Amino acid sequence: MTAPFTTLTEFRATLKAFDGPDMAAIAGAKDRNSQLTKPPGALGRLEDLAIWYAGWRGTDRPQITAPQVIVFAGNHGVCAQGVSAFPPEVTVQMVANFEHGGAAINQLAKTVGAKMDVHAVDLDMPTQDFTTAPAMSEGEVVLALTTGWNAVDPSADVLVTGEMGIGNTTAAAAVAAAVLGGSGEDWVGRGTGVDDDGLARKRDVVDAGLARHDVSDPLEALRCLGGRELAAMAGAIAAARHYRIPVILDGFICSAAAASLEVAAPGALDHCVAGHLSAEGAHARLLDGLEKQPILSLGLRLGEGSGGALALGVLKAAVACHSDMATFAEAGVAAG
Amino acid sequence: MTAPFTTLTEFRATLKAFDGPDMAAIAGAKDRNSQLTKPPGALGRLEDLAIWYAGWRGTDRPQITAPQVIVFAGNHGVCAQGVSAFPPEVTVQMVANFEHGGAAINQLAKTVGAKMDVHAVDLDMPTQDFTTAPAMSEGEVVLALTTGWNAVDPSADVLVTGEMGIGNTTAAAAVAAAVLGGSGEDWVGRGTGVDDDGLARKRDVVDAGLARHDVSDPLEALRCLGGRELAAMAGAIAAARHYRIPVILDGFICSAAAASLEVAAPGALDHCVAGHLSAEGAHARLLDGLEKQPILSLGLRLGEGSGGALALGVLKAAVACHSDMATFAEAGVAAG
Repeated sequence: MTAPFTTLTEFRATLKAFDGPDMAAIAGAKDRNSQLTKPPGALGRLEDLAIWYAGWRGTDRPQITAPQVIVFAGNHGVCAQGVSAFPPEVTVQMVANFEHGGAAINQLAKTVGAKMDVHAVDLDMPTQDFTTAPAMSEGEVVLALTTGWNAVDPSADVLVTGEMGIGNTTAAAAVAAAVLGGSGEDWVGRGTGVDDDGLARKRDVVDAGLARHDVSDPLEALRCLGGRELAAMAGAIAAARHYRIPVILDGFICSAAAASLEVAAPGALDHCVAGHLSAEGAHARLLDGLEKQPILSLGLRLGEGSGGALALGVLKAAVACHSDMATFAEAGVAAG
Repeated sequence: MTAPFTTLTEFRATLKAFDGPDMAAIAGAKDRNSQLTKPPGALGRLEDLAIWYAGWRGTDRPQITAPQVIVFAGNHGVCAQGVSAFPPEVTVQMVANFEHGGAAINQLAKTVGAKMDVHAVDLDMPTQDFTTAPAMSEGEVVLALTTGWNAVDPSADVLVTGEMGIGNTTAAAAVAAAVLGGSGEDWVGRGTGVDDDGLARKRDVVDAGLARHDVSDPLEALRCLGGRELAAMAGAIAAARHYRIPVILDGFICSAAAASLEVAAPGALDHCVAGHLSAEGAHARLLDGLEKQPILSLGLRLGEGSGGALALGVLKAAVACHSDMATFAEAGVAAG
């Protein structure tokens, strides 16, 4: 299906029109959970995840058989400000690495049985340096949102969105600051590993971007301060909601892109869980802002969808327990 | 191979004779890790896990293809003291559930591609009530250790040991207190879900056991206060070390059994990682005592090897990234 929007106004209306989960499926899943051969609550977070998943899939006994991981790549004009430890050429080199199966996300997607797609979003056309101009025009941001929307396989049953883009922790910090409040100091971290001078430059760059643009609207923040891969992730997360595909958010950059949706239309991320807590400085603050508890906390700070894919293993396990365990009655076990 | 001990003294000598990891493999794995297409350290804990795993497998580029999950079940005389919310019959009922594939651990083992074995250890012969007599004779505890040792598949490449046994959080709390110090108050939690009165009874029972026996020796603690499934887990963990099979510890009961090995022969658990932090009250204290950082913290308190099996998914992912990612040179990516 083609994306049902051609402007940011229409995209916002799409977000606001989304339905909530299937409450009957949630009730049925809770009932089933209470009958499974374990002490009540003994599977902890796995039980909550399975019930949440059931609600979005509209059945009290769902299965996960077709997970999709999508990695979006973009280039950033703000790299001219010296905000990354790596040169911008690395973005296209890493896209080739994704395509040849050599990156971390390739191994992680394989381990959890997910198909993986890579979309290089106009790498030969970096966004504008947001300290001097809006990162994207409306046409450009809508195109990136559309790329993301159309990248989602309607038959997928879980989605992980990841990214690659030298400079994109700076763009993400700027979007997070615009959307959730605060300044460069609150939101900037070391990304792939800048030194103290680089960190100070990133903070100044974010503050300059916040001062330069009117970003009181969260979708305008995505346009003026974000990047094509951030907008593509936002479009994919929205499409997943449309298709009732639960999403596992990855780290800082994915969460910043997602935050623009939640602030534009509260509840827009109800079909999403936070896959992990990244070691990138302000991710905890961002997840607090989204009221999401991370499934994992393993010190990852890679992006690519890596933390989301790892958490997909936990979600698959949760759903397998929920849907395939015997009930007390089936197993002839005394229920205590 | 038959277990190389017929007494607790010989078992202790076996533990003390174990070698450490392969330092050349660790050095090789660290070198490889530094060349992979990611910023240094960006895979966080996954990098540490892969290097640790490489050291025990004796290769800088290991693979995980044959994980084994073993669930040991035992019955406990101390149930006569009213320490569990479930009747003792549930142990044998749950063993049937494991054998028919209906329990949580069956689904989890399947999800991570592990073979699963179940050993019901003399369920028709509960241990003695440790408030009145030693739980096991020396012959009995050695038999249980041997059962555990012989249950390990020498060709496995990771081991998760789990358990089932109504009453066994009480036995585990008593062993933990004896081995690491403290009293019932420090080590007793709600297990499968006892009420406040049950909790008070469990504490008193643990204190009575500690007063009744000379448990200054950790293997005597396992004999006098433990259970057959605890001893079997200890035997299996020791056998894994013998075969250089890394182990993922499960929750409170598995960790308590393992603690008796570490205190009997410091370093005996160097081939083990903590799979998760259980919601069972004193598990955090136990992991602190073992100086192990849990991989996951998802509020599980089921046992069966469930948290260990979930963490196996993370370990598999870590090893897959380590061994299958491209290096900067292979991928033609600039190393920053």
